[in-house]
Amino acid sequence: MKNDETKARVNIRLVIEYDGTDFKGSQAQKDQRTVQDVMEDAIKTVTGEDLRVTGCSRTDAGVHARNYVLNFKTHTTIPPDRIKHPLNNVLPKDIRVKYSEEVPMGFNSRKDAKSKTYSYRFTTGDMDLPLGGRYRHTEKTNPDFEKMTDAAKLFIGTHDFKAFRSTGSAVTDTVRTIYELKLAKEKEDTVMTVKGNGFLYNMVRIIMGTLIEVGNCTKDKTDIVTALKTGDRKKAGRVVPAKGLILEKVEY
Amino acid sequence: MKNDETKARVNIRLVIEYDGTDFKGSQAQKDQRTVQDVMEDAIKTVTGEDLRVTGCSRTDAGVHARNYVLNFKTHTTIPPDRIKHPLNNVLPKDIRVKYSEEVPMGFNSRKDAKSKTYSYRFTTGDMDLPLGGRYRHTEKTNPDFEKMTDAAKLFIGTHDFKAFRSTGSAVTDTVRTIYELKLAKEKEDTVMTVKGNGFLYNMVRIIMGTLIEVGNCTKDKTDIVTALKTGDRKKAGRVVPAKGLILEKVEY
Repeated sequence: MKNDETKARVNIRLVIEYDGTDFKGSQAQKDQRTVQDVMEDAIKTVTGEDLRVTGCSRTDAGVHARNYVLNFKTHTTIPPDRIKHPLNNVLPKDIRVKYSEEVPMGFNSRKDAKSKTYSYRFTTGDMDLPLGGRYRHTEKTNPDFEKMTDAAKLFIGTHDFKAFRSTGSAVTDTVRTIYELKLAKEKEDTVMTVKGNGFLYNMVRIIMGTLIEVGNCTKDKTDIVTALKTGDRKKAGRVVPAKGLILEKVEY
Repeated sequence: MKNDETKARVNIRLVIEYDGTDFKGSQAQKDQRTVQDVMEDAIKTVTGEDLRVTGCSRTDAGVHARNYVLNFKTHTTIPPDRIKHPLNNVLPKDIRVKYSEEVPMGFNSRKDAKSKTYSYRFTTGDMDLPLGGRYRHTEKTNPDFEKMTDAAKLFIGTHDFKAFRSTGSAVTDTVRTIYELKLAKEKEDTVMTVKGNGFLYNMVRIIMGTLIEVGNCTKDKTDIVTALKTGDRKKAGRVVPAKGLILEKVEY
């Protein structure tokens, strides 16, 4: 029996962390293990309610999250700040509720998100290594860090990112604002951190792919300028693999 | 058919990396998935030979390795420096051959090891988090870093480490030399790196457990001095979990 949300007594926000390796993305899909399905199953076990959760964004298969936000309206009498404990008791090890709290009934974790921050990590080498390999792409080429850092500045600000998304999304407004985009070296890894008001389908992974190509001189800065101006997907780079991507933070 | 090692034409040394999470340790065990069994299966597939490998040390279930060394004597005509490629084609993703090379017939990766370096990583918190949680212990207490660093110096040098091993080993000579023992902070993690000429069963994990207890003031430096002098296991600390431990390096 579906839960009647209009009569729910409390809106609960959860902040969760998950290893995306064994999830087919965040959004519910028939006969697939998704973050939404696993969370809704756990909530049903704990509260007895067959309800729907609202997630802050759609993450693809293999993408990880350190602080994914979701909310749900419930009849439960379990205190909102305590419900993380019974949920963690029934959740599988690759997903954990870090915080739980009551929020106003009108709060919607998707619509009310003001900014999102993602990180993308890659190392260079000729093979994927087991230790940490779940959270990092192994790039066979060896892009120049200074060239990437220099080109990265072009993405900051409000632009039409039409050229930096994969097909398969129904979104028509492709203008987004990037507040910050930084590259850093961590031992052998290169980590890009990008904060924006929202991201199109595969946008972070295509920005990373474009910067790698600029770092390899197979594209240059003018290609980025042209892609942002014309929306020409071919001027932007490839989509790098999901496993290097982590949703780090959502702000409201 | 077992391989006749006495007629083998070449001795090959491999350096491998593995994620120990899904292995029941390094040494072959009946009906268990071990590093040795998985490597011997892969070698059999590639060379057709049913041979035994010699590993540099015995690692426990759940312990990882970044540079584990093993060798085997074979009739294969595959060039030793190339054999890593067909092996990696048949090995599962949680184990990878990083280097392969020919070594003198007399080389033995266990007996000839001059030193081994391990790292142990822990974070503090109230729950095990999914991202990176395979390679890190989550310590519920909050040990003082300076106290641990100060006490760590006591282990350096040649000592009888009888108090710092778990029962279940037949080794009678319990004197070992520790060349280096360092503690470092990496973001929220504490990482111990220890280099020695050899380690007793669970010795690294008991040293780490002892330092954590000193950091929490439930033991003090005199307990370490007494443990090293008397061999009294009770003066040393607990065995911390396997998953924080990585065999980093073996020198010959």
